[in-house]
Amino acid sequence: VGFFFSLISFLSFLFFFFFFPDISLAEDANSVANQLYSIFPFFQDIQVMLVVGLGLLLTFLPRYGLSVLTHNFLLLNFSMQWALLLQGLVHHVHHGQVHLGLRNILTAEFAAVTVLISTGAILGRTSPCQLLVMAACEIPIYFASEWAIITHLGVLDVGGTITIHVFSCYFGLGVSKALFRAAQQPVHPKETPTPRSDLMSLIGTLILWVFWPSFVAVLCQPGDAQHRAILNTLLAMSASAVTTVVASSLMDRDGKLSPGHLQNGSLAGGVAIGTVADMAMPPVAAVALGSLSAMMCLLGFKFLTPFLLRKLVLQDQCGIHNLHGLPGILGAAASAVAILVAPDDTAGYHLSPTGGNALCQVLGLAVAAGGSLLAGLLTGAALQAPCLAPPPQRLCFDDSLY
Amino acid sequence: VGFFFSLISFLSFLFFFFFFPDISLAEDANSVANQLYSIFPFFQDIQVMLVVGLGLLLTFLPRYGLSVLTHNFLLLNFSMQWALLLQGLVHHVHHGQVHLGLRNILTAEFAAVTVLISTGAILGRTSPCQLLVMAACEIPIYFASEWAIITHLGVLDVGGTITIHVFSCYFGLGVSKALFRAAQQPVHPKETPTPRSDLMSLIGTLILWVFWPSFVAVLCQPGDAQHRAILNTLLAMSASAVTTVVASSLMDRDGKLSPGHLQNGSLAGGVAIGTVADMAMPPVAAVALGSLSAMMCLLGFKFLTPFLLRKLVLQDQCGIHNLHGLPGILGAAASAVAILVAPDDTAGYHLSPTGGNALCQVLGLAVAAGGSLLAGLLTGAALQAPCLAPPPQRLCFDDSLY
Amino acid sequence: VGFFFSLISFLSFLFFFFFFPDISLAEDANSVANQLYSIFPFFQDIQVMLVVGLGLLLTFLPRYGLSVLTHNFLLLNFSMQWALLLQGLVHHVHHGQVHLGLRNILTAEFAAVTVLISTGAILGRTSPCQLLVMAACEIPIYFASEWAIITHLGVLDVGGTITIHVFSCYFGLGVSKALFRAAQQPVHPKETPTPRSDLMSLIGTLILWVFWPSFVAVLCQPGDAQHRAILNTLLAMSASAVTTVVASSLMDRDGKLSPGHLQNGSLAGGVAIGTVADMAMPPVAAVALGSLSAMMCLLGFKFLTPFLLRKLVLQDQCGIHNLHGLPGILGAAASAVAILVAPDDTAGYHLSPTGGNALCQVLGLAVAAGGSLLAGLLTGAALQAPCLAPPPQRLCFDDSLY
Repeated sequence: VGFFFSLISFLSFLFFFFFFPDISLAEDANSVANQLYSIFPFFQDIQVMLVVGLGLLLTFLPRYGLSVLTHNFLLLNFSMQWALLLQGLVHHVHHGQVHLGLRNILTAEFAAVTVLISTGAILGRTSPCQLLVMAACEIPIYFASEWAIITHLGVLDVGGTITIHVFSCYFGLGVSKALFRAAQQPVHPKETPTPRSDLMSLIGTLILWVFWPSFVAVLCQPGDAQHRAILNTLLAMSASAVTTVVASSLMDRDGKLSPGHLQNGSLAGGVAIGTVADMAMPPVAAVALGSLSAMMCLLGFKFLTPFLLRKLVLQDQCGIHNLHGLPGILGAAASAVAILVAPDDTAGYHLSPTGGNALCQVLGLAVAAGGSLLAGLLTGAALQAPCLAPPPQRLCFDDSLY
Repeated sequence: VGFFFSLISFLSFLFFFFFFPDISLAEDANSVANQLYSIFPFFQDIQVMLVVGLGLLLTFLPRYGLSVLTHNFLLLNFSMQWALLLQGLVHHVHHGQVHLGLRNILTAEFAAVTVLISTGAILGRTSPCQLLVMAACEIPIYFASEWAIITHLGVLDVGGTITIHVFSCYFGLGVSKALFRAAQQPVHPKETPTPRSDLMSLIGTLILWVFWPSFVAVLCQPGDAQHRAILNTLLAMSASAVTTVVASSLMDRDGKLSPGHLQNGSLAGGVAIGTVADMAMPPVAAVALGSLSAMMCLLGFKFLTPFLLRKLVLQDQCGIHNLHGLPGILGAAASAVAILVAPDDTAGYHLSPTGGNALCQVLGLAVAAGGSLLAGLLTGAALQAPCLAPPPQRLCFDDSLY
Repeated sequence: VGFFFSLISFLSFLFFFFFFPDISLAEDANSVANQLYSIFPFFQDIQVMLVVGLGLLLTFLPRYGLSVLTHNFLLLNFSMQWALLLQGLVHHVHHGQVHLGLRNILTAEFAAVTVLISTGAILGRTSPCQLLVMAACEIPIYFASEWAIITHLGVLDVGGTITIHVFSCYFGLGVSKALFRAAQQPVHPKETPTPRSDLMSLIGTLILWVFWPSFVAVLCQPGDAQHRAILNTLLAMSASAVTTVVASSLMDRDGKLSPGHLQNGSLAGGVAIGTVADMAMPPVAAVALGSLSAMMCLLGFKFLTPFLLRKLVLQDQCGIHNLHGLPGILGAAASAVAILVAPDDTAGYHLSPTGGNALCQVLGLAVAAGGSLLAGLLTGAALQAPCLAPPPQRLCFDDSLY
């Protein structure tokens, strides 16, 4: 393992040396400053989301908090560097030397997000080495899938609903299926959240909820489109939150609210709105989409996850299919509808004039889900290699790492 | 209850559909972008304050953390949407169709803050339904009160000291008085904070403390006024913090510091400075105001809260009268003094030329306190309706909701 | 003690009154607004770091969390006000009346950081009074040292590696040595972190990690230099994080990761990069510097701290020498190397044309380390005064303050 790491580090240094000879130097200091001030606050918000918010969200396993925070932190950094290198490599081949900028790092961070989401499916039953190998496999597949969906098919997806959320969800499920095979994992005694760990996890949710608009809007065109993206995301997430609390109370016989529902459902609106956030649409559509996606997320927890576990023996530890899969599909469907009903002139400056876009959105969804499922299955099979030291059953969900 | 919620949701959709047909579309993309960048970071800071900071501050009840975070989150979202609808309705009647913008959402969030503060008086002894009904009543009353104070009386109150803090404090006290009547509530065994819950609560205080300048300065005129507001708030809060620690140690016989004092006293300066933050004044005035308000807050905890509880049988769970009421009154008084002693030319571009403003400030304070107390009493009486399912005594301060 | 505080408060008021008659009033509202928007988000990030992040990082002592948060908060505010006063005094003597601005407060906050870092060496075995006296001594010495290093020697140190980190580290060690003398302090039963306190501390680390680029870049020249500073800091910290996890696992016989290592090592890159962050250099240099400093930090924990404790009887509670001292020295060395190898034209607009700068960097390092060590020894001797009420042995590391 140590050798493996040293090799990776050495290669990293080599790559960095070759592909990024220089950090970007613009001619006009003023324009750089303006760009910086317009993107840096968003960037910091996203960093807080990924490092603190997502880390805390995953601490719902009571004896696994330190491990989860560390894994999340390690994977984010490793994936980000790896994605930067791949970007540099591709650009190098195409355009010669590259200048590194904050936007590159942002794109690399988005690639890293897919790894963090996929991890949710296999959380607690995997070793750090397995997770690192998974990250190493997932990043290039993500770039290929993103290229196919955005550049080739011309799918509209400003908030990464299809390219990030749907992709990483099915990749994670594929890995989980191939890694654990048909062996039904017994419920582990350390799996049950305690009130304390639920509290920490809820704080993570709230942090994610607060900064989500920055995540969706950061890559929008500045001005109206960005303003719209922020507003639509705010409305969708607010609707999600209220719907989750009400629906979760109604679904339980005693009217009790499940912390797990709240932790996931209130974020579902943010996942779904990503495809359509920057389009001009009536606010009621954003509110409806947020409500609907929260509802789907809760129904998924109530019915689909147990069903998948029973019928397909599919392990989904954090319920990523309910938070990222279902709302992602809903978002893709919503974008197709939005394009069909949109008058030609309002949304026009964004859409290509061919008009075949609604189909493209659906096609993009299929590519993201199908491709990632396949790639995930292959990756999961590779993760079974014994040299990656999967943790023994009794040490799952345990901070024995420390 | 379920029916009640469905009805509300349905009505919400209807309202949104009618009153906000469109999100604002400006002609000049550049100016929108600039406005956005100038307001969005402040907006995010305020979101963190309300969702994470205020939520954590209220977790000082050891077995009530999950409930408090959920209630806070639900009430914020519900109140914000309800305030948006009311705004849309009023604008619709006056000006026809409305465009929704980030500034609308900010104003709606300010309205929601009043609900969150008022909740502090009745925390732990109320059901979610009661809190939602209270929110539904408080928002329109807030808008009426704000219109009377700011638009009609012309009161200067850039940080919402009078319109938000004083208003919501006396509204909450009124609700508490009418809801619990003369029945002295016994001290509940789950009311006592533990070191752990005090730690979480203190973290909430620190988050609020850090972002408070954004709250005060967000609606200031950009430029000098905003800069002054930020500086004055920083100085006042810094003075508050030091004064609180010193005074709390001196007030205790063993020199011990009370966590409750620290959690509230260090924020008192931010409440008081709100009325005068954007005025040109010597820094020493901001420091003095911050110190004085922290002192008043601590004295309130030490003497006034027990007195009110004994003589008026007035329940004030979080001590909102000490954090929002007393410093708010101090802030209003300070603004009256500031207007009286201000030379005509420095503060001139803000004040109307009539010169009767010092009186107006006092009048505004009286309107905010008196009106809200009355409205709170009525609302509290309505909350006694048995259909709202107040929690039984033994389930108070308990996460049995989950 | 009470009298002491009252005196300080009174003097503070007096000083504020004399030296800051007015808050800055610019002629051009637009330029103020632009400056404000470019500095305020950075400023808020730094506030979060110092108040929430650093506070949480220090809560690794399980029964000392409340005290540590309170001390951190009190010292930050006290030191900041004291630094503001000193600034005002010096400017007053030189230039007459001063206008207070956000930049002054930022500089004062940087001075306060040195106090917070130095505290780390003597954490848990000192009373609040001792800490306040130490703060009162350290702030003027910091200003003198900073003047000597930056203004007199012309050292390049945009992120405060030498002036802040190295200075405060050796000051703290000096205080610790003089205060505890040769008396080997027995290991206290309350010193051992629990998983819960490690979790809180790790969250603090993550918050510091996220916002560190703002700390390094806030005082850079806007535009390219600031952009470079942000990118270099990001790369260095990312490399630190990965290196820390890998190296800490490899250093332990069972492959376990030490939380203490993670809490400190992942920040080491940010300390080291401070001297060179705004220079134009290949990204691989930033990555290498980050990795190297993390490695030094871990080796320091493993070998140097036990060695110092055994041979020099030097108490370093939080290991500030490993996080601030060693990476700071590395950063200073790196800056000397960078200046030597830099071509004259790229980095030229920053460097003076004499070329003697590499020597100056080393000289600056010596001044910072030597001067502060001496001053720290003197301060530590003064702290032994019995009137400052050091806590008895059994109350160390205990929240008995409350």
